[in-house]
Amino acid sequence: MANEGSFEASQKRSDEIRADLTAHPEKYTMLTGDRPTGRLHLGHYFGTLKGRVELQNMGARANVLIADYQVITDRDTTEHIQDNVYNMVMDYLACGIDPEKTMIYTHSAVPACNQLMLPFLSLVTEAELQRNPTVKAEMEASGHELTGLLLTYPVHQACDILFCKGNVVPVGRDQLPHIELTRTIARRFNNRYGQVFPEVDALLSDTPLLPGLDGRKMSKSYGNAISISMTAEETAKRIKKSQTDSERMITFDPENRPGVSGLISTAAICTGRDEVEIAEEIGMGGSGALKKYVTEAVNEYFAPIRERRAAFEKDLDYVKDVLHEGNKRANEIANQTLAEVQEAMGMVY
Amino acid sequence: MANEGSFEASQKRSDEIRADLTAHPEKYTMLTGDRPTGRLHLGHYFGTLKGRVELQNMGARANVLIADYQVITDRDTTEHIQDNVYNMVMDYLACGIDPEKTMIYTHSAVPACNQLMLPFLSLVTEAELQRNPTVKAEMEASGHELTGLLLTYPVHQACDILFCKGNVVPVGRDQLPHIELTRTIARRFNNRYGQVFPEVDALLSDTPLLPGLDGRKMSKSYGNAISISMTAEETAKRIKKSQTDSERMITFDPENRPGVSGLISTAAICTGRDEVEIAEEIGMGGSGALKKYVTEAVNEYFAPIRERRAAFEKDLDYVKDVLHEGNKRANEIANQTLAEVQEAMGMVY
Repeated sequence: MANEGSFEASQKRSDEIRADLTAHPEKYTMLTGDRPTGRLHLGHYFGTLKGRVELQNMGARANVLIADYQVITDRDTTEHIQDNVYNMVMDYLACGIDPEKTMIYTHSAVPACNQLMLPFLSLVTEAELQRNPTVKAEMEASGHELTGLLLTYPVHQACDILFCKGNVVPVGRDQLPHIELTRTIARRFNNRYGQVFPEVDALLSDTPLLPGLDGRKMSKSYGNAISISMTAEETAKRIKKSQTDSERMITFDPENRPGVSGLISTAAICTGRDEVEIAEEIGMGGSGALKKYVTEAVNEYFAPIRERRAAFEKDLDYVKDVLHEGNKRANEIANQTLAEVQEAMGMVY
Repeated sequence: MANEGSFEASQKRSDEIRADLTAHPEKYTMLTGDRPTGRLHLGHYFGTLKGRVELQNMGARANVLIADYQVITDRDTTEHIQDNVYNMVMDYLACGIDPEKTMIYTHSAVPACNQLMLPFLSLVTEAELQRNPTVKAEMEASGHELTGLLLTYPVHQACDILFCKGNVVPVGRDQLPHIELTRTIARRFNNRYGQVFPEVDALLSDTPLLPGLDGRKMSKSYGNAISISMTAEETAKRIKKSQTDSERMITFDPENRPGVSGLISTAAICTGRDEVEIAEEIGMGGSGALKKYVTEAVNEYFAPIRERRAAFEKDLDYVKDVLHEGNKRANEIANQTLAEVQEAMGMVY
């Protein structure tokens, strides 16, 4: 994690950009993305997807990357990757990402973007790669040996951001070291070979992290997440199975009552209501009433999204077209940027 | 350096391939290359270029890579790179590399080859990258910090070898750890995703290293190398300036008389004569007679090569055509291999 001073500076810069974005969206090129390891859930939706749609609709150039090579940074398999990628496109479209405004693409389909790994790796030292605290944390969390790809993936992320000359990247605080490395790479490249890349800034999220149904970090592997793609029935079942506690009176107390409070937070974010207010309203209704309320809140909020998603599920050809078109545009942009890079480096023969 | 046991095994395998090459050249795809950091010299010519031409003329598929990204593994500049690349093509052509038989290309021009970095980096651990003794030695020799690109360049070399399904790589003993890593990557990829890549073997050189004119390792920076591209006059001047010793009687004694012996070795390799025989023939003629003999030997051997080179220097358009054609073919091969890789990994959308 970045130290406090640099965090403060990043936060300040992020606030400035957020203020400027409404007035001058045309100045900004945004890059965000997801690893296609499964279905997107409510944490993704409220934490990032909703914000991407807002940025897109403001008029910023928006690029959404399906980071398929990042799947193998800490896994020995690409099982189900095609299915995961198609479903990710469906999730995006259903949530309001508009392929006319936002470029959706997979980085494995853009060789000229990936080629930037070579010049960029020459601009960082092995010591700088080793120092990245987020890489270490991710390696420990994965329980997998540190692969060459996990060690260097912040450099690959720099390729993803810089190939499209992204200058604003919505991230959480833990991703700040990666943004800093991207800034370093861009600056060193420009100093050494001439101006090609922009300054990149983090757009720090201002919404607190939505916990899972049990109050822990939301994660598919904990079974505490509701996927966007679930049906109303699956949602009801998942909520019904979530663990609360033996106290009948419902109160909002994340520390001591994680299960009850996780449910309340989920309802609050879907209804836009205050958590304490919801808790007081349910009161002696107990977990049963709470779960009923949460289920309705989630299903109501996601009903139109899920309806759109069901339509896309029946039209895989369209989903593929969206991705092919995004990959085509990404290749055009990447080829153009790589040509500028080669020109700056004198590698024109 | 590989340990003695694995060196013995590599030597044995290399001898088997050398024996089989004459009978079945069609079974072999060779990949070799050079960093375009300056002009090629007699060490390159007798150490590798001559052998490449022989392999090419035997009928093996031959690929010669101008490794331009390797220039920045330990340098902060790409100065003169275009000029170096064009001159390297001229050196190749002059020495007998035939673009109808051998593919000459720069790896920066082949994005699909470079993209293999991503899946390949996921197949090696950071610990394996750190263990490579040649990388460490090269870093120390360069006096440069260990860059991300120098740390990972054996993986990039694996991309260079495997994108064209090279199965035989002429190398010196110090390069064996890289070949071993390429074998590891190919094997792990095939095990994990299905058979795509061949087994790669080293073809160990059987000619001893030609020393520089002063008996030290031949190197542009020592001023002890004769470039293929030098004129007869430049060659004479370089040899005239080379340091011998005060003893008039010429003898071949590399340990105690490095300067005299470096000159004799140079004459011997150009004339095909024995070093001791040359020394005895010059005898009391001293350094003057020796230098005259060496100058004539080098200039006679390289006269036809230099004549061809002069013609290519006047026809830069042809030189560029050769490279463009090679890059085009390399891209076709790389795109085909990358498609197989994507298919094997399920990254087909």
